[in-house]
Amino acid sequence: MTGIDDLPVRDELRGKSPYGAPQLDVPVRLNTNENPYPLPEELVERITERVREAARDLNRYPDRDAVELRTQLAKYLTDTTGHEVALANVWAANGSNEVIQQLLQTFAGPGRSAIGFEPSYSMHGLIARGTGTEWISGPREDDFTIDVDAATRAIAEHRPDVVFVTTPNNPTGNAVPRETVLALYEAAQAAKPSMVVVDEAYIEFSHGDSLLPLLAGRPNLVISRTMSKAFGAAGLRLGYLAAHPAVVDAVQLVRLPYHLSAVTQATALAALEHTGTLLKYVEQLKAERDRLVAELRAIGYEVTESDANFVQFGRFGDPHAAWRFILDRGVLIRDNGVPGFLRVSAGTPEENDAFLDAVRELKKEQRV
Amino acid sequence: MTGIDDLPVRDELRGKSPYGAPQLDVPVRLNTNENPYPLPEELVERITERVREAARDLNRYPDRDAVELRTQLAKYLTDTTGHEVALANVWAANGSNEVIQQLLQTFAGPGRSAIGFEPSYSMHGLIARGTGTEWISGPREDDFTIDVDAATRAIAEHRPDVVFVTTPNNPTGNAVPRETVLALYEAAQAAKPSMVVVDEAYIEFSHGDSLLPLLAGRPNLVISRTMSKAFGAAGLRLGYLAAHPAVVDAVQLVRLPYHLSAVTQATALAALEHTGTLLKYVEQLKAERDRLVAELRAIGYEVTESDANFVQFGRFGDPHAAWRFILDRGVLIRDNGVPGFLRVSAGTPEENDAFLDAVRELKKEQRV
Repeated sequence: MTGIDDLPVRDELRGKSPYGAPQLDVPVRLNTNENPYPLPEELVERITERVREAARDLNRYPDRDAVELRTQLAKYLTDTTGHEVALANVWAANGSNEVIQQLLQTFAGPGRSAIGFEPSYSMHGLIARGTGTEWISGPREDDFTIDVDAATRAIAEHRPDVVFVTTPNNPTGNAVPRETVLALYEAAQAAKPSMVVVDEAYIEFSHGDSLLPLLAGRPNLVISRTMSKAFGAAGLRLGYLAAHPAVVDAVQLVRLPYHLSAVTQATALAALEHTGTLLKYVEQLKAERDRLVAELRAIGYEVTESDANFVQFGRFGDPHAAWRFILDRGVLIRDNGVPGFLRVSAGTPEENDAFLDAVRELKKEQRV
Repeated sequence: MTGIDDLPVRDELRGKSPYGAPQLDVPVRLNTNENPYPLPEELVERITERVREAARDLNRYPDRDAVELRTQLAKYLTDTTGHEVALANVWAANGSNEVIQQLLQTFAGPGRSAIGFEPSYSMHGLIARGTGTEWISGPREDDFTIDVDAATRAIAEHRPDVVFVTTPNNPTGNAVPRETVLALYEAAQAAKPSMVVVDEAYIEFSHGDSLLPLLAGRPNLVISRTMSKAFGAAGLRLGYLAAHPAVVDAVQLVRLPYHLSAVTQATALAALEHTGTLLKYVEQLKAERDRLVAELRAIGYEVTESDANFVQFGRFGDPHAAWRFILDRGVLIRDNGVPGFLRVSAGTPEENDAFLDAVRELKKEQRV
């Protein structure tokens, strides 16, 4: 029987497995940082209206430049950060993964390199591999913070073409201080100069502010965002970036033409009309996230500070056995491979209660 | 003012422009091989029903493996070609451009090469560049056919990792004979072995049959397809491939996880329910395409044989001036840069009449 290794695949793909969390059918799914709240019914109706309109023109290619969508995303960013961005500053793609892929195709790729401070969002390294970019695993402290001296030394030593900073960081949950990002940007400019991509996928859940205002006067800085989390629209696959207009022009040299379908654009526009409602769910989730942190600490777990819609907790001698114990109680969380730790997404109050019951039982049994 | 060249973009992107036909607002648009028939109203309603359902679960990630969609695409291929393919043989992505990008990331990329026989679909070469793949421009005869000896010599000489064969070819319109594709496949296996990607984006408009049955016993063969043309759904961005299951497994090593949104999957599934109706439009378009070929010849133009939903005609001393003359009469067609020729998409009978009036006038004036 012919298998992958019988095909002329690239050598570095041999023996690899596709990325992805197990998609298991269990009562409580707190494993992929999804927003647990379904879209409100009035938004579902608005989406169907917008999609009906788009479907009537579906025989035509979509707006290649997604002008209306990018304009509304710019308005959202301006309204929520106080830093004015416009159409020319914003680019959108199928999930922030595609945004990152386009950035690496433009600014990294064969013969170039990118760095991230790990553990962090593992897709950064995987997309680097997929684009022929050398991946450099930068240092992170035992408490999952980034040490400025160690990180800037790594940048000076490796001179990467792209520097990823994820804040709040996934899977650890902690935010990166503004001063650290500024220091990394300066180090990256001194070393090469190189692009700095600040991945703010979870920023709406943070206690602190977006770093968007840092774009002023920094053309090599990119802020990456997504509608998957705060907008409760993981199924929509809509990621976007804000940057200097020259960056938006540059990624268009590698973007696949008409990459963003008319139905995706229509659905995203409908969701943006309901920003106010959706951000109220964010407030509920922040409160639940804070409750998870407090309760997990009260139970006796070590919990990483969280500015995201998930919480990293431990320590476990055998995290996978702990993950399985919790799964056996109907709650699916995530084992990201961080030694000693697991990650749980903030769900509804009921889902979080089910999770907390399971980990209380786990602690009582002292088994893992 | 900071521009692209002030950023640390890859050297090969400097001075380049984004791909894309001009999107002009004119009465008759026959430039991008779109299907001129809007989706029937009952299909628009079915799309909104399916999307409403998907929107209620939009806070969750989509089915990462698009199982229902790939199953229905497999059924469509089996029904229309008589060659049985199953879920495991089919993969789908955001447009056939993304399918091709994933294939090149898997089987080509840095240090590897791909060949196409030009003029052909120019995105093959552009996506090669975007994935770090060396692009080889293979030979095509003056009458736009592929000479088997010349093409197999080019394969033996360059030993490309991926061979593209577009049939019906874009922008020329002519189909590649089955025997030629078989000879190129054998040459590619003897040279390396390498993957052969048969791009059948326009196959539903062909006088001949799909080459899908050639998949039997050929694990290094891939058939690429799209819903943009025959399904009248360019705005949907749904491309797919059929191949040995090992190929489908392999591209999953490079695909971005959850690349295909829930609304895209829902819309495509609705369209597949209406295959019968949509294929009736294909029959109308084939008749109009044949009429365009006959009328253009009657007017005195040289016309390339067409198995697609578009027609290449000439010859013009100054194709761009001819393109402009036709545009000035409210009809937008395409100047693909093929010396001496222009390309017109088959539109509705009224649109084609407007086009034919313009080119009759052009011929009368003998100006270009």
